[in-house]
Amino acid sequence: MFFEGSEKKIEIELSFGLDDLRQKPHSFWEELVEQAHAKILSQIDSEECTAYLLSESSLFVWKNRITLITCGRTTLVNAAKYFISQFQSNDIESVIFERKNEYFPDKQPTNFYQDVIELNKFIEGKAFRFGNADEHHLYVYHMNKPFTPEESDKTLEVLMYDLDKDVLNLFQKENLKSEELRLKSGIENLFEGFKIDDYVFEPFGYSLNGLKGSEYFTIHVTPQDLGCYVSFETNANIQKNYDEVLARVLEIFRPRSFDTIYFHPDQSLAVEVPNFSQRSFVEGSMGCGYHITYAHYFHKNLVELEPVELKEL
Amino acid sequence: MFFEGSEKKIEIELSFGLDDLRQKPHSFWEELVEQAHAKILSQIDSEECTAYLLSESSLFVWKNRITLITCGRTTLVNAAKYFISQFQSNDIESVIFERKNEYFPDKQPTNFYQDVIELNKFIEGKAFRFGNADEHHLYVYHMNKPFTPEESDKTLEVLMYDLDKDVLNLFQKENLKSEELRLKSGIENLFEGFKIDDYVFEPFGYSLNGLKGSEYFTIHVTPQDLGCYVSFETNANIQKNYDEVLARVLEIFRPRSFDTIYFHPDQSLAVEVPNFSQRSFVEGSMGCGYHITYAHYFHKNLVELEPVELKEL
Repeated sequence: MFFEGSEKKIEIELSFGLDDLRQKPHSFWEELVEQAHAKILSQIDSEECTAYLLSESSLFVWKNRITLITCGRTTLVNAAKYFISQFQSNDIESVIFERKNEYFPDKQPTNFYQDVIELNKFIEGKAFRFGNADEHHLYVYHMNKPFTPEESDKTLEVLMYDLDKDVLNLFQKENLKSEELRLKSGIENLFEGFKIDDYVFEPFGYSLNGLKGSEYFTIHVTPQDLGCYVSFETNANIQKNYDEVLARVLEIFRPRSFDTIYFHPDQSLAVEVPNFSQRSFVEGSMGCGYHITYAHYFHKNLVELEPVELKEL
Repeated sequence: MFFEGSEKKIEIELSFGLDDLRQKPHSFWEELVEQAHAKILSQIDSEECTAYLLSESSLFVWKNRITLITCGRTTLVNAAKYFISQFQSNDIESVIFERKNEYFPDKQPTNFYQDVIELNKFIEGKAFRFGNADEHHLYVYHMNKPFTPEESDKTLEVLMYDLDKDVLNLFQKENLKSEELRLKSGIENLFEGFKIDDYVFEPFGYSLNGLKGSEYFTIHVTPQDLGCYVSFETNANIQKNYDEVLARVLEIFRPRSFDTIYFHPDQSLAVEVPNFSQRSFVEGSMGCGYHITYAHYFHKNLVELEPVELKEL
């Protein structure tokens, strides 16, 4: 049985003068994520943000901004259309839609190109590919509207492929409690002072949302033999030390290869990682106001492999 | 407009005592390739082999063996089933089915897993993946039957991704004659003494079959901006000098990255290529009697990229 860990993500920012999004009734958010075929499992709040843990990833709601991340066979683009259609078009300040290349694209209900055609019915935007089409790559679509991110508006995503055997075994263990998993994996000590909401799926799989004021981090682990994937995303502690955050995340999961995706008002993320070679490095100052850096790394020692027999057909 | 260059390939060997396959009527081969949704464009013969150039790749027919290669959205597995069903099951000595990961897997009528389920209805086989699922990789399915390849039974495939700009421009030029393309590209001087059959497609795209006795080589160029791909395959001149053949092919096409696939009775293909880094190296002595080596290389200088705007949606 295969589960697609690779995620789709949408970030939408509205005019600052509108009502606080967190005043919307719970049913609004339920309806929103249902458009993507996801469900709300639980919720935590800080003064500035509400974080929903979903059956397939996460939703973060700030005063005038949402970040919705979904994996599996979800139809995130439908949720995006639903959200956008609730507001006047001139109140939509920024829309950024991302989609990572998938393990099994043929199992997805739509591809990126189809999603963009749908989004273009509601807003005017541009589509890009970061990285070669035949390699790891990131698709990014953004609305065409001048936007100036705040100085602190920086996001780091680390998308990891395959894990060290010991780490994989830990996450594949059945009937573990989330607290146990957090402690044994080292996730517990990644950041200090965050309110944590996490969940262990059946038979395995792990999701976590963490909140502290306006800072968040989120982790999703899909520890399947056929298509192991872990995503990490945060705006916390990366104002100056993104390389330290990256190093600690890599130490916890020990992947065979990984991407970094860095959104910053004007700087790129150029970082050398010990024991890893860089396969792709793509950066651009985009029309959506962000400087985006995408890089793919692979572990130097994990190039030689055996053929893998595929028994589950 | 996109065209999937990545190929599927089937190689079937029959008992030696059967009638010479080349005695089959033309209509048999027409029917065979039609099963895959391809058409025969032309044909050349040597004493030992007939080579058909197809609308989508190539078919080689020896006394008791065929090699059928198809690209695009072809259904090669149907042709394989059709061919196998024409013979007694104990006359099928060897079946090897290969499929390279595609640019757009969601546009394919079937995936490898589905193809294997179909083939398993006719023969008993095993399926393997060479390389990580999220990287360049090769799927190989083979029949479970002891088979001893002849000492000279060695095949080298070189699958190339993206080409140097000058090379790409040459192959994208419209209204070029095939002879002109052969001369300007350097293909003309790749091997000596081969009978050549080649074809330039509209608006572009190039296919070549070459024959000399039992030796063949074949080239297929899909020079599309969105998914540029070139395949080269031969059993010629690689008995001792496969690295020289590889070097000359790379000099002609100057790709950004490429795979080598090497079938040999018992040896692996371990070769360092100047200016290229090895991303994957996978080898195995398989139950089908061949030692198979799969490797992926990428050009060291082509790691830094710009985001690519996707305008054709």
